[in-house]
Amino acid sequence: MADMNPPVENSLENAAPNPVDISVDIAGLMAEIEALAGISEAEPPVVTRVVFGEADLRARAYVKALSREAGLSIREDSIGNTFMRWNGLDPHLSAVATGSHIDAIPNAGAYDGVVGVLGGLEAIRTLQRAGFQPRRSIELVLFTSEEPTRFGIGCLGSRMMAGALSPGEAQNLQDKAGRGLEDLRRVAGFTGDLASVQLDAGHFNSFVELHIEQGPLLEREGLQLGIVTHIAAPASLRILIEGEGGHAGAMLMTDRHDALAAAAEVILALEAAAKSTGEIDTVGTVGVCEVFPGAVNSVPSRVRLETDVRDTDGARRDGVLAALKSSAAEVAARRGVRISFETVNSDPPATCDGAVLAALEASIADSGHSARRMVSRAYHDSLFMARLAPVAMLFTPCRGGVSHRPDEYASPEWIAAGVEVLARTLAQLSSQSFT
Amino acid sequence: MADMNPPVENSLENAAPNPVDISVDIAGLMAEIEALAGISEAEPPVVTRVVFGEADLRARAYVKALSREAGLSIREDSIGNTFMRWNGLDPHLSAVATGSHIDAIPNAGAYDGVVGVLGGLEAIRTLQRAGFQPRRSIELVLFTSEEPTRFGIGCLGSRMMAGALSPGEAQNLQDKAGRGLEDLRRVAGFTGDLASVQLDAGHFNSFVELHIEQGPLLEREGLQLGIVTHIAAPASLRILIEGEGGHAGAMLMTDRHDALAAAAEVILALEAAAKSTGEIDTVGTVGVCEVFPGAVNSVPSRVRLETDVRDTDGARRDGVLAALKSSAAEVAARRGVRISFETVNSDPPATCDGAVLAALEASIADSGHSARRMVSRAYHDSLFMARLAPVAMLFTPCRGGVSHRPDEYASPEWIAAGVEVLARTLAQLSSQSFT
Repeated sequence: MADMNPPVENSLENAAPNPVDISVDIAGLMAEIEALAGISEAEPPVVTRVVFGEADLRARAYVKALSREAGLSIREDSIGNTFMRWNGLDPHLSAVATGSHIDAIPNAGAYDGVVGVLGGLEAIRTLQRAGFQPRRSIELVLFTSEEPTRFGIGCLGSRMMAGALSPGEAQNLQDKAGRGLEDLRRVAGFTGDLASVQLDAGHFNSFVELHIEQGPLLEREGLQLGIVTHIAAPASLRILIEGEGGHAGAMLMTDRHDALAAAAEVILALEAAAKSTGEIDTVGTVGVCEVFPGAVNSVPSRVRLETDVRDTDGARRDGVLAALKSSAAEVAARRGVRISFETVNSDPPATCDGAVLAALEASIADSGHSARRMVSRAYHDSLFMARLAPVAMLFTPCRGGVSHRPDEYASPEWIAAGVEVLARTLAQLSSQSFT
Repeated sequence: MADMNPPVENSLENAAPNPVDISVDIAGLMAEIEALAGISEAEPPVVTRVVFGEADLRARAYVKALSREAGLSIREDSIGNTFMRWNGLDPHLSAVATGSHIDAIPNAGAYDGVVGVLGGLEAIRTLQRAGFQPRRSIELVLFTSEEPTRFGIGCLGSRMMAGALSPGEAQNLQDKAGRGLEDLRRVAGFTGDLASVQLDAGHFNSFVELHIEQGPLLEREGLQLGIVTHIAAPASLRILIEGEGGHAGAMLMTDRHDALAAAAEVILALEAAAKSTGEIDTVGTVGVCEVFPGAVNSVPSRVRLETDVRDTDGARRDGVLAALKSSAAEVAARRGVRISFETVNSDPPATCDGAVLAALEASIADSGHSARRMVSRAYHDSLFMARLAPVAMLFTPCRGGVSHRPDEYASPEWIAAGVEVLARTLAQLSSQSFT
């Protein structure tokens, strides 16, 4: 990766003086977050914004309107990634970028992704209000479909930007209703060659993503900010279990090859394997369990599971997957069912860049906020941006570690601290003189 | 029950001589069964006919047209139970009835229920061709929604006929799309007071149902027919498991209250409890498992299971349910989740009538076919008809015990034997002189 990511020069001697008057309009930002939460496929406070759905498109329009008000120029690529640019004094230099996503899984909350998009915009406006003049342009990026809800694969926009998903692979994606990506993006207004989505390494000078932690550690420890040094490696698998169906009354217990009973053992085997590492950074989840034919009086003949296993250590994660497959093979043999695995994605973990981390830590020192270094067990668009540019992430706490639920919550104080540090960091990175 | 079911006089001294020329048109019957299988919501050979759906209504029309051709008069009640009558010489006597259902669960086969309806019609035509004149009228009954697919409760038509489901309870039924029974039956063309569906005990003289076994015993033992002496007692439960949702990456394994992992333990506990009786007649199944929110990157917060437990011995069945609930309480306490049970139905088992069984056995002796007595672990409309009239059931084998699947199969030889014995039995019962 080193050859792809030219290191940011870890020197602040050329940096402009920090803007004197960093003052976040937190009331205005919270009102914008609330307004965006109201653009949902579900009744408030439930947020559901599936990519390319009507709510997603209306939410994009809202963000673009706010960016236009802030004087940013807007470019959309052919998959809907949206780049909102504040031109620097030296506009031919590669830009410093920040951003996140606004799509939301079914039954989600108001903060996941949104804090990085609207908070990133407020960081830019804060610098504008302070009279700061960036040398490098600063771009706010809204990534398409960070959530895997519709197409089964996460970070669609950043993945394609990094060339980790080819245009051909993307064109084969379908949603559960059988609608293809090509059809859906065109209806949403995004046309043009998908190959143009990929950016060169070096296109961006650096990338910093502000995000809620989606875990309990910062709040538990009473800290205001988290500095992410590593992003966990997610692996997503589909598991198909094929047994033998029959009449729930007439099929003898001793004759059964019940696909759901076998699936139950697989679900518990994954839980046990994830727990067995004893490491806080290992997690394993079965989030989807579809039963066929799914009638109360039919013995299930087929079950489809979707699982998600993550770790900051790729080898340890692969060990969990190996243990799962070994348990599944034993279950299949004992119960006379077939169990097959399909890997949907298995991405390598990412390591954040030392110089970007140093800029973050200097900004935290300037702001006086409390912070710790930590890892992200959730994945983010930064996982793929790390293939294009030096990256780091900044976490704000979230109440009770709750995310992907309507009661997800981050306080104005937490968000204000994050936006302040992001603004200081963008100022530093955009002032650096190396080309 | 004795006072509700006046015993059939177990005496054949008044019976008419058996018709000489019992000749089943098995080729014609098999063609009709195939034609009916083609009336499906799914592509052949998959049969799906959900009650009040378009395929169900077209299939009803087909059966009624065949009945009209056979000279039967037709009455439909306000829930769609259809009575096709061959008037006897003494039409004021209570009728002898036979019949079954034509609705089919998703992804089912061609024989479940249909053999009793079209086979019942062929039994009547066989007697007509033989020149037989019934003293009592013979009625072929097509019952509405024997399958619980749409409304979650089986034997809807016969249940209401027996007064085991009140009109008020029926009016509260909804399908999964939230459409009410009242709306659906009216759109299907069945109007009028639901209270009129209930029939008096004594309305029918007797009832005999021909059905495929839906189990493996007859084929395994090389027998042509089964004489059902008891019908198992089904209990259907909905189980709601409420845990805590969250982000599949960020929520620590040690903090989880995963509703699906808890459900997996409940599924295995039911399997173990059903097996623990060591009795061939005990079966327990989880056929439905719905996960909320059902996203690959969300820890499941809620799971809804639908289970079906049956036994010919009601007390033994209740013991399985008690063991399940005890295991579930332990799982709930250990995992910090809530598990609640809702009983959808818990019907008592039925015992077939000695005199009707005697008529069946005499007919089997006349025909020379091989047979055994057995129990039905599947439930049938006979379970509720037993509350109105003396009943018995006649089983034909089915290949591999397979049912509720597209590869469900019963051979022409098996079906012909069943129709022949049914015809002889109807002849006997309709000739008896008691009033």
